[in-house]
Amino acid sequence: MVDVPTLVAQAREGRPRAVARLISLVEGASPQLREVMSALAPRCGNAYVVGLTGSPGVGKSTSTSALVSAYRRAGKRVAVLAVDPSSPFSGGALLGDRVRMSEHASDPGVYIRSMATRGHLGGLAWAAPQAIRVLDAAGCEVIIVETVGVGQSEVEIAAQADTSVVLLAPGMGDGIQAAKAGILEIGDVYVVNKADRDGADATVRELNHMLGLGEARGPGDWRPPIVKTVAARSEGLDEVVEALEKHRAWMEERGVLAERRARRAAHEIETIAVTALRERMGGLGGPRRLDALAERIVSGSLDPYTAADELIAGLKATE
Amino acid sequence: MVDVPTLVAQAREGRPRAVARLISLVEGASPQLREVMSALAPRCGNAYVVGLTGSPGVGKSTSTSALVSAYRRAGKRVAVLAVDPSSPFSGGALLGDRVRMSEHASDPGVYIRSMATRGHLGGLAWAAPQAIRVLDAAGCEVIIVETVGVGQSEVEIAAQADTSVVLLAPGMGDGIQAAKAGILEIGDVYVVNKADRDGADATVRELNHMLGLGEARGPGDWRPPIVKTVAARSEGLDEVVEALEKHRAWMEERGVLAERRARRAAHEIETIAVTALRERMGGLGGPRRLDALAERIVSGSLDPYTAADELIAGLKATE
Repeated sequence: MVDVPTLVAQAREGRPRAVARLISLVEGASPQLREVMSALAPRCGNAYVVGLTGSPGVGKSTSTSALVSAYRRAGKRVAVLAVDPSSPFSGGALLGDRVRMSEHASDPGVYIRSMATRGHLGGLAWAAPQAIRVLDAAGCEVIIVETVGVGQSEVEIAAQADTSVVLLAPGMGDGIQAAKAGILEIGDVYVVNKADRDGADATVRELNHMLGLGEARGPGDWRPPIVKTVAARSEGLDEVVEALEKHRAWMEERGVLAERRARRAAHEIETIAVTALRERMGGLGGPRRLDALAERIVSGSLDPYTAADELIAGLKATE
Repeated sequence: MVDVPTLVAQAREGRPRAVARLISLVEGASPQLREVMSALAPRCGNAYVVGLTGSPGVGKSTSTSALVSAYRRAGKRVAVLAVDPSSPFSGGALLGDRVRMSEHASDPGVYIRSMATRGHLGGLAWAAPQAIRVLDAAGCEVIIVETVGVGQSEVEIAAQADTSVVLLAPGMGDGIQAAKAGILEIGDVYVVNKADRDGADATVRELNHMLGLGEARGPGDWRPPIVKTVAARSEGLDEVVEALEKHRAWMEERGVLAERRARRAAHEIETIAVTALRERMGGLGGPRRLDALAERIVSGSLDPYTAADELIAGLKATE
C-alpha cells in the first residue's frame, strides 16, 4: 500500500515524482484512489484546462510543445497530459513520455505525462479527469490535454476541457470530412497550423464559412476565432494564448466556466457510479451469471432487455 | 403506439417497410423496444454479421456495394447497416440512405439502412446490436455493418461482428499510424483496396509484416488473410467472400463463433443494464440531486468518488 497522505502532501508541493506516482495510481485504477481524491479535493479547481485535438498530421505534438513555451514565457506552470484513447487493446501509449517534447524535459515548471486509456466504454471517461485533478492540485496553472489518435473520443476529451482548441492544417480534405468528424461543434478556438503552406488561407475561409453556417449567435455569444500558426517555427502561439485567455475571460464574465465545470463534474460522478455498478454486476454470482444470460440470448430463448432486467434485479437483491 | 405484433410478423416476412419502422423504434429508443425484442428473440441468431471498417478515403462505400453484389451472386439475402458514430451532436447521418449504393436500390434481396448513433458513451453500444437483431429476424443472411467515420468506435463495432474486415488503401501512411488506430488487433480479414495503384504491394508487405509481429500463433490459429481488390471495378470481391466464408467455417469448427456471440450478448446485456441504471440515477430526485453534488465538487468540498457513493446510495433507497 502507498502512503497516501505523504504522497498527497508531496504532490501538493508540486514534486514531480509524487505527481507521477499518483497518476500511476489513477492508471492502475488503484483502490486507494478514493483516499487520494478525497485528500486532493480542497486543492482542485484552480487550473485552466485546455483541450487540444486534431487529426494525425496536423502537427499536434509540435503545437503543444510551442504552446507550452508560450505559456512559460507568460510565467505559468504548465502540465501536458497526452491521452491515447485509440488503442484499447495494447494497454500502453505508443509514444513514451521521454520522446515527447524533449525541449521542456529540464524545465521544472513543465510536467509532461502520456496516458493510455485502454479499454472499452468509460475507460477514458473516468481516468483522464482524475489525472487532471492530480495535476490541478499539484499547482499546475494550465493543463493541456492533448489527444493522440482520432475519433469520437476526441469529443469526449473536449468535453473535459475548459476551452477546446481544434487544430487543422491546409489540405485536410473537404469540409464535409471535418463536419463528419464532429469538430465544428467542439472548438472554442480553431488553429490552422502549417500556415506557411499553400491552401492555408483557403482552409481559414472554408472553416469560417462552415462555422458561420446554421448558427444564430446572439450579440454576446462566443464566436470561435481562427488563429494561423507555424508551430515548427513557433509562430503565432502567443496569439493562440491570447485567444485562449479571451475565451477564459468571456466564460468567467458570463458564468459559463462555472457551468461547464459543474456539468463536467456531474458527468464525472455519473461515470464513476456507473463503473462501480458495472463492476458489481460483473461480480454478481461471478461472471457466470452474465454468461448464463448471454447463452440464453444466443440460443434465442431470451431477449437482451429481459436479461438486463434480471441482472439489475440480482444487483438489488444482494445489497 | 405501434402495433408491435403485426409489425414483427411483417418484419419476419422480410417486408422492408416493417423492418424500417422497427429500426426507427430502435433509433428513437422507443419504450416498445422491449416488446419488439422479446418477440424477435426466437428468430435471431441466423445471420452472419460482417463488420467493415477503414479510414476515410479507402473506398468503404464502394467496397460495401461491391461486396453486396458478390453476396447477391452467391444467392444470399443481404443487409447493410451503415453506422455513423462520429457525429454525436448532429443527430442525423450525413449520408442519407438514398444516395448510398443506388445500384442495389431496386433489388428486393438487399436492405440498406444508415443509422446515426448520436450521443455519448453507450449511444452506439446498445443501438446497433438491436438494429442487427431486427435485420437478423427479418431473414437477412448476411449483415454488413459498415462504419462511417473513424476512431475508437470502429473497434466497438468490430466487437459486434462475427467477422471483422479492415479496409486499407495504398499510401495510407506508415504502419505506426495503423497500429495507433488499433486496427491490427481487430481484423479477421484485411482488404487492400485500390490495388491497381502504386504502392499496393508495399502496403500488403508492410501489413503482412505488422501482422506477423509479436504474435505466437498456434498451428490451428487463424492467420488473417490479406486480399487485394479494386472495388470500383468489382475486382477481387469474390475472393473477399471466400476469405469470409473460410473464417466463418474456421470459427464454427472451433466453437469460436458461439463464443464470440455469447461474449457479444453478455456485453449487450450489460450495456442495456447500465443504460437503465444511468437513466434511473439521472431521475433520482430530478437532475437537481446530481447537480448539487457537482456543485460541491467544483467548490472543492467533495470528491467525485464520495459523490458517486451518495448517488448510488440514493438509487438503492428508492427501490
